[in-house]
Amino acid sequence: MPSDTLPITLRVALIGAGGFFGTNLAQYLVPRVAELRCFGMHLSFPEAMRGITWVSGNMADASISEVLSGCDTVVHLASTSAPGTDLDISADAQSNVMASLHLFDRCVAAGVKRLVFVSSGGTIYGIPGHVPIPESAPTQPITAYGVAKLSIEKYLEVYSRLHGLDYRILRVSNLYGPFQTVEKKQGVVAAFLSEAMRGEPLEIWGDGQVVRDYIYVTDVAEAVFAALRHQGKPWIFNIGSGAGLSLVEVIDAIEHLLDRKLERHFKPGRSVDVPINVLDCLLAKVELGWYPRTSFADGLRLTAEWLSIWSQQYQVQNR
Amino acid sequence: MPSDTLPITLRVALIGAGGFFGTNLAQYLVPRVAELRCFGMHLSFPEAMRGITWVSGNMADASISEVLSGCDTVVHLASTSAPGTDLDISADAQSNVMASLHLFDRCVAAGVKRLVFVSSGGTIYGIPGHVPIPESAPTQPITAYGVAKLSIEKYLEVYSRLHGLDYRILRVSNLYGPFQTVEKKQGVVAAFLSEAMRGEPLEIWGDGQVVRDYIYVTDVAEAVFAALRHQGKPWIFNIGSGAGLSLVEVIDAIEHLLDRKLERHFKPGRSVDVPINVLDCLLAKVELGWYPRTSFADGLRLTAEWLSIWSQQYQVQNR
Repeated sequence: MPSDTLPITLRVALIGAGGFFGTNLAQYLVPRVAELRCFGMHLSFPEAMRGITWVSGNMADASISEVLSGCDTVVHLASTSAPGTDLDISADAQSNVMASLHLFDRCVAAGVKRLVFVSSGGTIYGIPGHVPIPESAPTQPITAYGVAKLSIEKYLEVYSRLHGLDYRILRVSNLYGPFQTVEKKQGVVAAFLSEAMRGEPLEIWGDGQVVRDYIYVTDVAEAVFAALRHQGKPWIFNIGSGAGLSLVEVIDAIEHLLDRKLERHFKPGRSVDVPINVLDCLLAKVELGWYPRTSFADGLRLTAEWLSIWSQQYQVQNR
Repeated sequence: MPSDTLPITLRVALIGAGGFFGTNLAQYLVPRVAELRCFGMHLSFPEAMRGITWVSGNMADASISEVLSGCDTVVHLASTSAPGTDLDISADAQSNVMASLHLFDRCVAAGVKRLVFVSSGGTIYGIPGHVPIPESAPTQPITAYGVAKLSIEKYLEVYSRLHGLDYRILRVSNLYGPFQTVEKKQGVVAAFLSEAMRGEPLEIWGDGQVVRDYIYVTDVAEAVFAALRHQGKPWIFNIGSGAGLSLVEVIDAIEHLLDRKLERHFKPGRSVDVPINVLDCLLAKVELGWYPRTSFADGLRLTAEWLSIWSQQYQVQNR
């Protein structure tokens, strides 16, 4: 079973590392691996990445080969669209599926030993027959975002079979935590916290009964590190809290943290939303020795602390 | 339940109609629909398509819109690669998945009412847990060909959800029949029959125990016609004989047809082959009123008759 006391020999390339999860993952991995190279379209938090190797670029371009050269492992977390963007499916497939195949080709050429793909446990199953959802459940995504993740997973399996590119897939539930910002409409926890801390009413899409599995970002970074070193047989792992929270329960938790009542504005629901998503994460516990360490209350507090500091800096920068 | 006596009002575009299945399907549909337009890269059998509207082109090009204009239904049977071609996965995905998304975009723009996608029952399930395989079985293709078919299916579902493009998917097993030629290495029945009729030894990959579900091409054309008019709820149908035959059993049947013993040369097996594939086709029977009418003995005889005539013409043409 992997552990933090194992010898540190990994030379890791993070692809798509410039955003919310990438920033957290880079900070988590940099003291734990022999070498870390971060690659992405845009670096959202340059101060947070100080001292970490950063290369700007598109994974669909030839320049990716330089980054991969000499790395034994790759984490693929690049994604050019957020869940809900179904306006141009062809463009989405080109920049996600086709770009991923280019990355896999380059990984094979560079002799990369293992690739960890960060997939979407929140969208890949579609509307579940029951919860919590195990990895063996049918994969019936209802959005182009989810279909792209599924296609990439399936192609990765073929690359492994044909070209020996070893892989692990993490189907991650709804991430939240530091460096998730409201500007990109990335996550409901960041959005609610931000509105609440600014004293604004909370905007709720639908009746607030949509249930999601919220997982703290550092817990997921830990799962990636375990997946990079995993020696067992299964290749696909759900990574989530294993517990569901409705939007209303998320707001209740924020009220509890801030110790005051929040105004709630209900708006018509989005049709792309599945009503419920909660992941069964037993396999990750058994195989990766991983479990979600951070309670939602603790994660919310850590996120609020970061958001408070960042909002002040952001306001200073934009003055 | 659909029937051949229903009013004939369909205006159909066949995309990818120039090859083996397209030629058979065009011949089957032309007396049964109000209008038929065939589109494809290359017309393999011009004589067989005489009197049928044919437009040459690539479905990834803008020219496809002209063909779709005024059609209420589309059959998508275009496929640029055969099972087993995994050499350039990116190129395969571009010419199959991306080109299909372009086709779907054009169908939405042209107001097409329904699209029937001819998928692959032989590869989409991968190595089955048990046979016969129902439509609800896990989809774990082991080849890029199968992953492309699965990705197209999943994207088609999203197009339907977002843009109202109604669809049916036929997961077809191993097709055989007239117009399947040895030159393109399309099918084992055509290959064996051709070798046998030329008096050559039969080349068998592996030990001859690989089991496939062979379906006569006209039966599949009938299933497409039923799917174009189907009014029920399920969208995905297996289309096969429902019975498995090993390579050795196929050869036994050819020996019986030709009434002589055939020499057998065994060669190393292909790693891309799944050991067995047999489809459960109950849903098509119940919902489409479809069943495979042609026994393997009859289908083999019809194929041999066509091959005999075609070989003579082909030899005359190439003299």
